[in-house]
Amino acid sequence: MWQENAGYPGKSTGADADFRPSAKHFGFGGQVFGAERLLLERMLESIGNPSVQIELWDGQLAPQHQLRGVGSDGGDGPVARMIVRDRGALLKLISNPEFWFGEMYAAGRIEVAGGLAEFIETVYRSLPRVNPDTLGKRLLAPFSDAHRNSLPKARSNIHHHYDIGNEFYRLWLDRQMVYTCGYFPVRSMSLEDAQIAKLDHVCRKLQLQAGETVVEAGSGWGTLALHMARQCGVKVKAYNISREQIAFSRQRARETGLDDRVEFIEDDYRNIRGDFDAFVSVGMLEHVGVDNYPELGAVIDRSLNTSGRGLIHSIGRDYPCPMNPWIERRIFPGAAPPSLSEMMRIFEPYGFSVLDVENLRLHYARTLEHWLERYESAADRVAEMFDPAFVRTWRLYLAGSLAAFRSGAMQLFQVGFARSGYNQIPWTRQHQYLA
Amino acid sequence: MWQENAGYPGKSTGADADFRPSAKHFGFGGQVFGAERLLLERMLESIGNPSVQIELWDGQLAPQHQLRGVGSDGGDGPVARMIVRDRGALLKLISNPEFWFGEMYAAGRIEVAGGLAEFIETVYRSLPRVNPDTLGKRLLAPFSDAHRNSLPKARSNIHHHYDIGNEFYRLWLDRQMVYTCGYFPVRSMSLEDAQIAKLDHVCRKLQLQAGETVVEAGSGWGTLALHMARQCGVKVKAYNISREQIAFSRQRARETGLDDRVEFIEDDYRNIRGDFDAFVSVGMLEHVGVDNYPELGAVIDRSLNTSGRGLIHSIGRDYPCPMNPWIERRIFPGAAPPSLSEMMRIFEPYGFSVLDVENLRLHYARTLEHWLERYESAADRVAEMFDPAFVRTWRLYLAGSLAAFRSGAMQLFQVGFARSGYNQIPWTRQHQYLA
Repeated sequence: MWQENAGYPGKSTGADADFRPSAKHFGFGGQVFGAERLLLERMLESIGNPSVQIELWDGQLAPQHQLRGVGSDGGDGPVARMIVRDRGALLKLISNPEFWFGEMYAAGRIEVAGGLAEFIETVYRSLPRVNPDTLGKRLLAPFSDAHRNSLPKARSNIHHHYDIGNEFYRLWLDRQMVYTCGYFPVRSMSLEDAQIAKLDHVCRKLQLQAGETVVEAGSGWGTLALHMARQCGVKVKAYNISREQIAFSRQRARETGLDDRVEFIEDDYRNIRGDFDAFVSVGMLEHVGVDNYPELGAVIDRSLNTSGRGLIHSIGRDYPCPMNPWIERRIFPGAAPPSLSEMMRIFEPYGFSVLDVENLRLHYARTLEHWLERYESAADRVAEMFDPAFVRTWRLYLAGSLAAFRSGAMQLFQVGFARSGYNQIPWTRQHQYLA
Repeated sequence: MWQENAGYPGKSTGADADFRPSAKHFGFGGQVFGAERLLLERMLESIGNPSVQIELWDGQLAPQHQLRGVGSDGGDGPVARMIVRDRGALLKLISNPEFWFGEMYAAGRIEVAGGLAEFIETVYRSLPRVNPDTLGKRLLAPFSDAHRNSLPKARSNIHHHYDIGNEFYRLWLDRQMVYTCGYFPVRSMSLEDAQIAKLDHVCRKLQLQAGETVVEAGSGWGTLALHMARQCGVKVKAYNISREQIAFSRQRARETGLDDRVEFIEDDYRNIRGDFDAFVSVGMLEHVGVDNYPELGAVIDRSLNTSGRGLIHSIGRDYPCPMNPWIERRIFPGAAPPSLSEMMRIFEPYGFSVLDVENLRLHYARTLEHWLERYESAADRVAEMFDPAFVRTWRLYLAGSLAAFRSGAMQLFQVGFARSGYNQIPWTRQHQYLA
């Protein structure tokens, strides 16, 4: 697995500030050449000259012009400093910053002082704007990512991320183990409450009635399925291809006496069969791949009865955009958050009617603040369970995601829909805002 | 103008029930041939065999199998009856029902008994479902409708519809002359109140603050612009290419003492210049044409400051779909209600962040119930102002639109958006639902 490649020999002690291996350790120290500084400047130019400091292994800040920037806090000067510990890390970073920043950070050969999320947010915000002409072509281009999420590949992709071990996730998720964006009606709400509020928000949007049947695609540790059964009195069939999550979910269903109303099925969403009043999917679409959206639409189409409605909750984008290659390789193989135009490939070919789209981007940033804080508090426990590169990889993933939602590089869409022409839809959205 | 082509010699007396010109009047009476019945059956089959009765000029119902259908009211039997008054009308209807139904209805050579809107809704609901394969290709195909809404063409298209005369619209619109979908927090609300509620709903979504600047694209009779200035204390520049509407709006601004804060500009949205806090457009996008969406996006992009946000309110579709050719010819030349994937061509190329989409389809159906009722009450007045074909054309347009919104053939989207990465966006949508 990926840990073997990281090549970092030391052991993290938690936050970056405490983590300063000697540059000499890697045997690549020595003088920084002018050509290296020039290449670094070019690389920084290509990503919009973010207002961050860069310190090389000789202790000097470089390039000098980086010092004149203004931080994203509105004050003067850079908000954070990246320390490149050796020549090899610098050359890799210059060659492909999107991929090698993560690799080198995980290996401890790049560090960040002054806030990892703040550093990444500054970089995100400085990136050149999307080019409308290029994007226009991309919007019309056919996609070709379907193979990445074929049935067997999807299983291995999901296994990679979700079967790390429930104990690991328990260290930093909320008590109910909800691994998707929370909903904070009030910003100061606790993470536990925000996850319950999210489950309620989804149930309200679906307007579930006692006795109805619901199919869930991608059910995580089973929290939403159990919540819908308990709170709304519905019967749920929940599909998931993560073996560990399914086992955990079934155990919870038995313990809470809901196993007569919630069935957890270890299978792919493409194998959903049945006739349901509602379809719901929270945090699975990211793993589907845009090329498979029409197939997902066909699954929904054959599963929903004539009064059927549904909700898909997914990380998204302001415009079609490839996944960061490091995240795709190390964290979420096969993942691709869609833009809204891409999401419509699920609904439009089958004539579903989109009723409601809500963008909860800032709620995901808030959720990630909680997760990152809990993760840092549990870093010692994580370090006992995994090697140091794993500890740093997951820190970077959580901090990077926080930065992505804060900066607008990522969005969170909840899309509610119904059968075309079905008129028993909510008259307004007022019901979503009852106390 | 189109009235000259209608070819209907009589004079309408209002509702269809009272309107029964003799078939012989057109000189096309006589026996109905078997081949005609067969062609009619084929045509009905192609539109999904709607559960409606068809009476031909010989007084017989045809074809017989139409009688076995079930009405959309859930009861037995057809909900409405179409009477075809002469052979020429039947042959035209068979050759291209989408276009000739409207033409022949306007001419009085086709009539409908039992509810015009109900008849059309039944037809809409029986239409064969969209074919996902065909649509998939259409979703990726380049569009070619830009020429239809070039600057001069747009002026003539808008003149055709909106410069019929303010007196005509005053007969059936609300007091404030709002010619777009109302918002009925409670279904029983009056049309006057629902239009005010809509203006407030739009203002809340935009979160306008006193002193801010707003640009409006397509300002109708000026009601929203004046409302925003009066209720929110903003300064508004409102663009419209309908000369009559601009003159009317300026007069209202002077009369209400708002002419120092609201400027009505007789010009195309493509000529918008300035730097604004908010962009708003209610009921103009239908006239823009999908090919021009990137250009509209560019206009918004150059007009909004860094904290800018916006709202576009438009009739839409569940999937890309050409406009009914009769509506396009007789009512709205150049009009094309978009699907959401099409609407995204405004936002995605410029990296705007879509925050909120609300589908108010049933609110437009309710609005049209009011308009149609008022229109029927004023039919005598309309008949004094225009020829009978005009009276029938507008009745069909209003009843047909009502049917389209009831059946889901048309949607109404309000899309709220902001600059990418702008974080002063509303935390939840609760503020939209304060009393």
